[in-house]
Amino acid sequence: MQRMKIGLCGLGTVGAGVVKILQNHQKELHHQTGCELEIMKILVNDIHKKRNVQVDPDLLTTSSDDIVENEEIQIVIEVMGGIDEAYHLVKRSLENGKHVVTANKDMLAEYGLELTELAREKGLDMFYEASVAGGIPILRSLKEGLVSDRLHKLMGIVNGTTNYILTKMDEDERGFEDVLAEAQELGYAEADPSSDVDGLDAARKIALLARLAFSMPVELDDVEVRGIRKISTEDMKLADQFGYKMKLIGLAARDEDKVEVSVEPVLLKKDHPLTSVKNEYNAVYVYGDAVGETMFYGPGAGSLPTAVAVVSDLVGVVKNMVLGVNGTSYVIPQYAKQLKAKEEIYSKFFFRMEAEDVAGTFLEITKIFTSAEISLDKILQLPKKKKQTAEIVIVTHLANKAQFEQVVENLNQLPIVHQLKSIYRVEEQA
Amino acid sequence: MQRMKIGLCGLGTVGAGVVKILQNHQKELHHQTGCELEIMKILVNDIHKKRNVQVDPDLLTTSSDDIVENEEIQIVIEVMGGIDEAYHLVKRSLENGKHVVTANKDMLAEYGLELTELAREKGLDMFYEASVAGGIPILRSLKEGLVSDRLHKLMGIVNGTTNYILTKMDEDERGFEDVLAEAQELGYAEADPSSDVDGLDAARKIALLARLAFSMPVELDDVEVRGIRKISTEDMKLADQFGYKMKLIGLAARDEDKVEVSVEPVLLKKDHPLTSVKNEYNAVYVYGDAVGETMFYGPGAGSLPTAVAVVSDLVGVVKNMVLGVNGTSYVIPQYAKQLKAKEEIYSKFFFRMEAEDVAGTFLEITKIFTSAEISLDKILQLPKKKKQTAEIVIVTHLANKAQFEQVVENLNQLPIVHQLKSIYRVEEQA
Repeated sequence: MQRMKIGLCGLGTVGAGVVKILQNHQKELHHQTGCELEIMKILVNDIHKKRNVQVDPDLLTTSSDDIVENEEIQIVIEVMGGIDEAYHLVKRSLENGKHVVTANKDMLAEYGLELTELAREKGLDMFYEASVAGGIPILRSLKEGLVSDRLHKLMGIVNGTTNYILTKMDEDERGFEDVLAEAQELGYAEADPSSDVDGLDAARKIALLARLAFSMPVELDDVEVRGIRKISTEDMKLADQFGYKMKLIGLAARDEDKVEVSVEPVLLKKDHPLTSVKNEYNAVYVYGDAVGETMFYGPGAGSLPTAVAVVSDLVGVVKNMVLGVNGTSYVIPQYAKQLKAKEEIYSKFFFRMEAEDVAGTFLEITKIFTSAEISLDKILQLPKKKKQTAEIVIVTHLANKAQFEQVVENLNQLPIVHQLKSIYRVEEQA
Repeated sequence: MQRMKIGLCGLGTVGAGVVKILQNHQKELHHQTGCELEIMKILVNDIHKKRNVQVDPDLLTTSSDDIVENEEIQIVIEVMGGIDEAYHLVKRSLENGKHVVTANKDMLAEYGLELTELAREKGLDMFYEASVAGGIPILRSLKEGLVSDRLHKLMGIVNGTTNYILTKMDEDERGFEDVLAEAQELGYAEADPSSDVDGLDAARKIALLARLAFSMPVELDDVEVRGIRKISTEDMKLADQFGYKMKLIGLAARDEDKVEVSVEPVLLKKDHPLTSVKNEYNAVYVYGDAVGETMFYGPGAGSLPTAVAVVSDLVGVVKNMVLGVNGTSYVIPQYAKQLKAKEEIYSKFFFRMEAEDVAGTFLEITKIFTSAEISLDKILQLPKKKKQTAEIVIVTHLANKAQFEQVVENLNQLPIVHQLKSIYRVEEQA
């Protein structure tokens, strides 16, 4: 029986999961590939660290050369995280003729296009299903299952930490800071939560998804990013009255040959299936010209779910090795990247502001929207008890971002508007 | 450029969708395969029928020989429906060395195992993603994305007609017959709706899913089937009070090496993601040892969604042809089929009955459950206004099917129970 020799880089949460699946599902894996999958070396930072998975201590090494320069190793699994070290390791692995499976979205968002091109030149596989929405086979579905369709929009809940926080804020009516502290205690959020709560993590994932969905070299810098720190439970309650739920959405949309890519808090109609995605779960909602709407739901992270994606990719590499067809399933972007101008990005908007509670206030505010040619869909005005002010909430009809920015500027200059408290994109498409 | 020659069998709803996608997405398809995909012949019943898709009349034929015996045709797409004729056409196509893409679950539920074996012997591809949950790439996800996991349970809403009917019954509080008539008018249900509403269609799909998920030769006869005709809006309202929603669920579960496969109305907890699947949408919920829970959601039928699945399979066949690796992605069942005995099938149950409203009634009923060693989880007793009776609703704790049948028999023999109105399986996991 053929033995496929693997170098595993990283033995943290995901690495330990990979080892467990290779140990526990041997029978199934052998049935799938006809081969024995053998981990030859494991790259770690500290050989003596106690781990919650059993491995032969002789396999451990702290030198990447033991993997990258090891001629017996045919496949490198990179689950160590970080950007630069991982990039160099993957690059050297490919240069030395090794197939790569990686779960590293941070590194791919930065260097993925270059590494994919290198793998293609070398005729090697480089798979990365685990890098987006861990346990959900979304990349495969875009590349294969929906390959014959033309996709025009993706909306993804692709960060479990922020979805957990928003779920708790909504269900328990607790503030952001309070829920964040709890999430940190439970291990759902990092000590430094900024990459999650400020949207960077989601931005990397939506960049990778947009690349595949639209076959365009979308970069991290192309993603407009806004996190969830400023969301209040009052915003959520008012949105609820209008029939919306708040979610942090990675959005990628194409009209003709131009795209927009963003991460921001979005108000979705309550009957949208993404609103049923709660706690740390992820989901990606896909709109295709022909297929209509599909959604892929599952755990976005976690040791074993992510490891399933890694090992399923490994099975793909091994099958290709047996068939002799590695390096043929590439998705090199085919179209030049064209980003939409502000005037081409349309949505509805939710405005919430505090204004003077005097006659004529609403007329003044309305004038500003009218002069920007934005018509209003829903309006709510509530008097504030304490002060002589009113809370005004407006949901507009479709408007483009340039119109919207004009309104924001003018509202900020209007003396009767004391505070423009919050503004959210609204998505009403089913 | 290589031209791949295709014979299309059937030009109904799905066939027309296939033609449209091949016409409209040429650029994308060429980018994916590097080949030109050309329909050489189209098998139809009536050459002169008016159709809502434009095709060269010279391509049409009423003779299957023009496709099956045509040496130029390399790939046969079977979307004509029906069982026996389709079976013979696919069989002859494989015997003559042609790859097959089919959307025909009826035929596959009956002859799929035989045809898969024939394709494997001949080294040909036979793909059938479109046969289950049209627009959702669920078979591919089971075969590839989740391949390294051990799956232990699937629950699917795999029939759009019944899901539409149940959604309307629930939302509008209208009876089954009423909603069925409307669904027939709207074209969501057939004139003879029995294959949908009695569960046969869902049974075929869950049999195909169980084959793949558990790698076992599950047959249609192995599926316990019960449809939705007897569901009343009263059942739904009472279930709602207990926190459940009613769905017609195709269920396949494995414990160790034994499986159970069924289609029946099931009460799901309201926070289960499947309860958010409304109207004609389909979804398959998958429980894996490692991945935990994932869900695949989308349109279960329709011309274009189903055609996307067919053409994506076609792209798979063509890529394999270019690479010279056809006939290698088979999923031949690896394990002997072992069905669970009644004593091994566990769930909670919902009982609803009308009983005499006299002292001691509830004691008598409770005794029956106790003697079957079933403990009770939730109880509701409501007096009926008109008669001297009470409505009693009971949700049990976990019990096996043998215990459950004993209770049903004993309740039916108890004189104070006037009518055992309805019984449903309850699934509370997740």
